[in-house]
Amino acid sequence: MSQNEALLTLEGWYVLHDFRKIDWDTWKMVSEEERQGALDDLMNFINEFGAVETDKTGSTAMYSILGHKADFVFMFLRPTLEELNAVETAFNKTRFADFTAPAYSYVSVVELSNYVNTTGEDPYQDPAIRARLYPELPKSNHICFYPMNKKRQGEDNWYMLTMEQRRELMRAHGMVGRKYAGKIKQIITGSVGFDDWEWGVTLFADNALEFKHIVYEMRFDEVSARYGEFGNFLVGNIMDADKFQAMLRV
Amino acid sequence: MSQNEALLTLEGWYVLHDFRKIDWDTWKMVSEEERQGALDDLMNFINEFGAVETDKTGSTAMYSILGHKADFVFMFLRPTLEELNAVETAFNKTRFADFTAPAYSYVSVVELSNYVNTTGEDPYQDPAIRARLYPELPKSNHICFYPMNKKRQGEDNWYMLTMEQRRELMRAHGMVGRKYAGKIKQIITGSVGFDDWEWGVTLFADNALEFKHIVYEMRFDEVSARYGEFGNFLVGNIMDADKFQAMLRV
Amino acid sequence: MSQNEALLTLEGWYVLHDFRKIDWDTWKMVSEEERQGALDDLMNFINEFGAVETDKTGSTAMYSILGHKADFVFMFLRPTLEELNAVETAFNKTRFADFTAPAYSYVSVVELSNYVNTTGEDPYQDPAIRARLYPELPKSNHICFYPMNKKRQGEDNWYMLTMEQRRELMRAHGMVGRKYAGKIKQIITGSVGFDDWEWGVTLFADNALEFKHIVYEMRFDEVSARYGEFGNFLVGNIMDADKFQAMLRV
Amino acid sequence: MSQNEALLTLEGWYVLHDFRKIDWDTWKMVSEEERQGALDDLMNFINEFGAVETDKTGSTAMYSILGHKADFVFMFLRPTLEELNAVETAFNKTRFADFTAPAYSYVSVVELSNYVNTTGEDPYQDPAIRARLYPELPKSNHICFYPMNKKRQGEDNWYMLTMEQRRELMRAHGMVGRKYAGKIKQIITGSVGFDDWEWGVTLFADNALEFKHIVYEMRFDEVSARYGEFGNFLVGNIMDADKFQAMLRV
Amino acid sequence: MSQNEALLTLEGWYVLHDFRKIDWDTWKMVSEEERQGALDDLMNFINEFGAVETDKTGSTAMYSILGHKADFVFMFLRPTLEELNAVETAFNKTRFADFTAPAYSYVSVVELSNYVNTTGEDPYQDPAIRARLYPELPKSNHICFYPMNKKRQGEDNWYMLTMEQRRELMRAHGMVGRKYAGKIKQIITGSVGFDDWEWGVTLFADNALEFKHIVYEMRFDEVSARYGEFGNFLVGNIMDADKFQAMLRV
Repeated sequence: MSQNEALLTLEGWYVLHDFRKIDWDTWKMVSEEERQGALDDLMNFINEFGAVETDKTGSTAMYSILGHKADFVFMFLRPTLEELNAVETAFNKTRFADFTAPAYSYVSVVELSNYVNTTGEDPYQDPAIRARLYPELPKSNHICFYPMNKKRQGEDNWYMLTMEQRRELMRAHGMVGRKYAGKIKQIITGSVGFDDWEWGVTLFADNALEFKHIVYEMRFDEVSARYGEFGNFLVGNIMDADKFQAMLRV
Repeated sequence: MSQNEALLTLEGWYVLHDFRKIDWDTWKMVSEEERQGALDDLMNFINEFGAVETDKTGSTAMYSILGHKADFVFMFLRPTLEELNAVETAFNKTRFADFTAPAYSYVSVVELSNYVNTTGEDPYQDPAIRARLYPELPKSNHICFYPMNKKRQGEDNWYMLTMEQRRELMRAHGMVGRKYAGKIKQIITGSVGFDDWEWGVTLFADNALEFKHIVYEMRFDEVSARYGEFGNFLVGNIMDADKFQAMLRV
Repeated sequence: MSQNEALLTLEGWYVLHDFRKIDWDTWKMVSEEERQGALDDLMNFINEFGAVETDKTGSTAMYSILGHKADFVFMFLRPTLEELNAVETAFNKTRFADFTAPAYSYVSVVELSNYVNTTGEDPYQDPAIRARLYPELPKSNHICFYPMNKKRQGEDNWYMLTMEQRRELMRAHGMVGRKYAGKIKQIITGSVGFDDWEWGVTLFADNALEFKHIVYEMRFDEVSARYGEFGNFLVGNIMDADKFQAMLRV
Repeated sequence: MSQNEALLTLEGWYVLHDFRKIDWDTWKMVSEEERQGALDDLMNFINEFGAVETDKTGSTAMYSILGHKADFVFMFLRPTLEELNAVETAFNKTRFADFTAPAYSYVSVVELSNYVNTTGEDPYQDPAIRARLYPELPKSNHICFYPMNKKRQGEDNWYMLTMEQRRELMRAHGMVGRKYAGKIKQIITGSVGFDDWEWGVTLFADNALEFKHIVYEMRFDEVSARYGEFGNFLVGNIMDADKFQAMLRV
Repeated sequence: MSQNEALLTLEGWYVLHDFRKIDWDTWKMVSEEERQGALDDLMNFINEFGAVETDKTGSTAMYSILGHKADFVFMFLRPTLEELNAVETAFNKTRFADFTAPAYSYVSVVELSNYVNTTGEDPYQDPAIRARLYPELPKSNHICFYPMNKKRQGEDNWYMLTMEQRRELMRAHGMVGRKYAGKIKQIITGSVGFDDWEWGVTLFADNALEFKHIVYEMRFDEVSARYGEFGNFLVGNIMDADKFQAMLRV
């Protein structure tokens, strides 16, 4: 990587995707009183997200997840790894957490890699850039998360391409993405050195079919077709405090 | 993917394959009364499938599964991810669910990809098309489910082929499938952006040997031989409320 | 696959290999009376194998397994998937099953693929053929089970070979197998469409070293060397009701 | 494999590597009396190793294992699979086994594959050969175990080489091994047909760094560089009855 | 590997990375008294690290870990595998360990492989060398650990390169590393013959983004791009006795 390319990547908030399963058996077995105590703790925990959002010291999303992989996810954006660790530990200390088990997680940092610095000014002071590095997570109906690598296998080795080749491939890729503006909000997070894959991709949409359309259409781009390696996909529905309580009502 | 090809894919109901294991030890250990309460909940849960079917607001299949991977599967077809999540949660709230554990699941959407729009009319209004996108699941004796990808490995990269090449390969593949008309009913569901593989394949047959015949014969098609990647296969026998109760009688 | 080749494959009984672990801690912890009740159920379960064998409505083998993967295996051959499911469920309902946990399983069907129909008669009426499709499992000292695929990777793609090439490769392979006649009894079961690999191989021998010799010698055949993909290997010692009771005596 | 090559492989005792974890929580929770009962059983179990060694009916090694994969290993050499199974079951019946769980295991047979029969005499009668096929396990400070395959991938396919090519590659490999005479004792065990890899390698050394040196140096031999596939590595420290008791003292 | 190259590798302390999860449910469930007893044991265990550090008989680091893979890690450097095993067992005997479970671990030895012996003197007597072989672990804010291999796949086979080719590739790689001097402290540990990968890499930094920068920049070096295979990445925040207690306060 040349000095030039390093300039192209900007980083914002750290991110923890914290996927959890619910232990339904125990949840139903304990007394209504115990359940209420756990719900109180959960509501308190959720309520603090608002202050963080207002203070612009982070953002949080909360979605139920389909299938056996997880029951819900908290997506936490915070300024430091210490704060991410603190919120994770705070949840573990709630009484509600006793009725859950960790299912999967992902550690990364919001990343802007298509930035070209022509003005000579500090991009971190540019409001448009800041809005993307320190985003307020959308309230879309659906979330889709998956991690990915760029392949390094025989002839298909992304990291052996020249920067020009990579830039051209990414440009074509970006043009497909632009067709989904207004339908899909996408947050790319870098996880090289933080987690098992190189990037995390989090998509938000009101119509879940758009997840299928964008990922499928992009798979025919050479950058995905030849160089993309994909991990597990998790998909879910938006929750707020009320929906969470409704889900847990027994 | 060209604009043209996008036109070729139609989507219908969302699908959740929900594979579960039975905790036989606990099931046998609890009182007859507790078992009866659990069975009552299960029967109520199953009974609602009928109304969904009648109202054409979805379809449901229920099969016992062979071997250690799972004991039974619910295959739910519903109009939205929210409704799939709701039925999954509703099952988790039954007393019967306490005697089960999630074993595997798959999230996808019914997909029709061989549609060529020549008339200019809205295919979603065509009754023949609607019957395939919003199908009533058959009552065949046996089910076979497996997920699959199209390979992207060295020379065998499906997504680097031209659309003409792909169409020709799929055409030959489809001709093998047509030989099994009347023996096999097949539902292809797309899961790009929803789950870990690109497609789910669900086969229904009265004679389970037909699963072996069709999958084996198709494996010699170039499209499978060079480009098919297959996940786990799960096979089972049809159940209704009576058969489920008989299986659980101890 | 040409119509011709389809003729070459005959199918017999369905097969379930049901590998189980023993929960030794609980087994030793419960009362002698509880253990005896569990043993009574196990003995009743085993005793029914004899009638199945006599009626020619199936066959059953029972072996202890070495190492941490499993403690014992039931290999069930039955005419239908429904009967396989029933025997699996019947075992789960025994009190003995409470002291075991599923470890692995395999669903397949006895397959005869080297049959060439020259007489024009129905091979399913030929007694020699029937004896191989509906076999009485041998009482050899040792069992070896492993699943396998034919590879589809780059230049080594079995399914892209012509039938002549495949037939020639299999012929050479079969000649090695014939050298072990009298030492090894082999049952090939097809699992395309039923389980995660394409075939299951079950070997029986009085001298376990023959397993090593035949599998190693065959690995140098081009058909294995270039096209064979192998799953886990499980090996064990024959058990009968007495040996099973001796193993469980504490 | 030609008839000639078959002559080159001799087999001795069967081997079970039985890796176990200790359930420390329960071990500390139970009464001193229960712990003592468990220790008594363990000591009786260990004491029988001596008689086996004296009678030349087998050999046994016992090492603690570093890290989360296991806490200790028994390496059992016995004349038959039935005896291996018996010793495994005998351990499971001790009260100490209740405080352990199986972590990993490996089934194989001592193998001598560099033997060239020039004398025409029965090698199994040669005392030097017998000492290698039926070895008394050394009392070295450290053990290292790993399973391995010979690769069959594209151009790197061991089983498609001629015997001359394989012999030449193994000869060079053996010369590296010889440099470690006196530092490393190595037992090669064949597991084709018995377990998931083709061979098990067990190294013994007083200086654990020699494990690193020999495995690293050999990795540059073409036979490892191009044709070696390696499984998990487990490393440990020698134990005897006293050290085992000290480890368990709480 | 030539005799020459062997000279290039020096080894220091053995290393155990011991990753653990906290069982939060039980931790919160037990009495304040039990928690205090467990904390006392933990503090005693931690306190002994200081003496080891002072005596120069080892070094220890303690970090909380983000996400579901683990809650904290102890990184132990000790002179022998016996001492590593002893400290691991000592932790298991603390009452605090009852509230934890092993999550992952890694066994290796500090390695210096870029040493060229030109003076003819014993490098193990050189204070600068000794400081790197027997390091005092830094107190950086963050840790990053990952294991890695050098690839042996088709054309990308590190172990088939000549020593000159490898040296040149490593030299370029080292130059990238040098750019991070002052930002990143790196400890390379060799694990050939000890654990499942060939090397462990432990990075320390006050700014966690540097982990992403160095690993990403290095990925474009041919040595990583073509020859690097990477395992799981774990990242965390520094802890001391106070921070550990704060994390556990409920």
